[in-house]
Amino acid sequence: MEKEKVERIKASLRAIPDFPVKGILFWDVTTLFKDAEALHLVCGELKNLYEGLGVTKVVGIEARGFVCGAILAHELGAGFVPVRKPGKLPADTVRKSYQKEYGVDEIEIHRDAITEDDVVVLHDDLLATGGTMVAAYELVRSMNPKKIYVSFIVELEELDGRKAFPDDAEVSSLVVC
Amino acid sequence: MEKEKVERIKASLRAIPDFPVKGILFWDVTTLFKDAEALHLVCGELKNLYEGLGVTKVVGIEARGFVCGAILAHELGAGFVPVRKPGKLPADTVRKSYQKEYGVDEIEIHRDAITEDDVVVLHDDLLATGGTMVAAYELVRSMNPKKIYVSFIVELEELDGRKAFPDDAEVSSLVVC
Repeated sequence: MEKEKVERIKASLRAIPDFPVKGILFWDVTTLFKDAEALHLVCGELKNLYEGLGVTKVVGIEARGFVCGAILAHELGAGFVPVRKPGKLPADTVRKSYQKEYGVDEIEIHRDAITEDDVVVLHDDLLATGGTMVAAYELVRSMNPKKIYVSFIVELEELDGRKAFPDDAEVSSLVVC
Repeated sequence: MEKEKVERIKASLRAIPDFPVKGILFWDVTTLFKDAEALHLVCGELKNLYEGLGVTKVVGIEARGFVCGAILAHELGAGFVPVRKPGKLPADTVRKSYQKEYGVDEIEIHRDAITEDDVVVLHDDLLATGGTMVAAYELVRSMNPKKIYVSFIVELEELDGRKAFPDDAEVSSLVVC
């Protein structure tokens, strides 16, 4: 992506110190989402990355991953599938537990949401330590789709979340902070 | 909308008895979201309803309202703004409490997300009793945008949620179940 576009996307982000807890610098993407031009730029770049690959499902991680995940699905002519916290999805699900800094968390997906014919893009707004997305990757991989791509808008370089993924995972981010 | 399209959208929904509690028939829109053709149909109809009206922001209600809300924002060249449960938005917010069947609930929105120049579409997947959306409507109205429209994919006729809105609210739904 051109440097100018990267700078435009970065300029639409807001850094908030000490959220949700003291010592964390939180990258707020809601300022990107509400900025029609930045949103258009990001979703255009996501489409460029994944069009022509036969993508049939975009899986968004609750809740910020639903925003550009849904737009990407629509732009690619694919379906959209949510990965959610336990208890939110009404039909039969597959679950995955994973370790967080303090304790264990869980995510789930509808069992009939992904088939062996699907080509899947997993999407979330931000790659930090990668915990939730690695769990989503393993969850979706257990459903045996043809192919899985992993997509973020922002990657926090310092936290090196990429190293949490298997070596053959195809992980992309639009901007690195 | 043509009857054939309405039937196509309805056919993509899944009715789940006794979720989240016994006695509730839950209308699952995830089967619509994962169905690329139905998703395309719904978002095309939403775009038809709101294009040409100068919409600058689409406000989606956490979390299912983020899906077609974000796509609608993108299609209209507008920004996307999330309404969330308390504690999820990192910057300064405006909050609204509202009565639910059992107890009080709260939603919030970033204070700088809506300005007096905005023309707003509020979006959620489903109109049941209308409690959350009426609170979102009042919350956004307190920020004095030029105009507010309210949009749902599905309206549950039996619950008569429309009557919970002020008389001058412009409430639309694509299909009635």
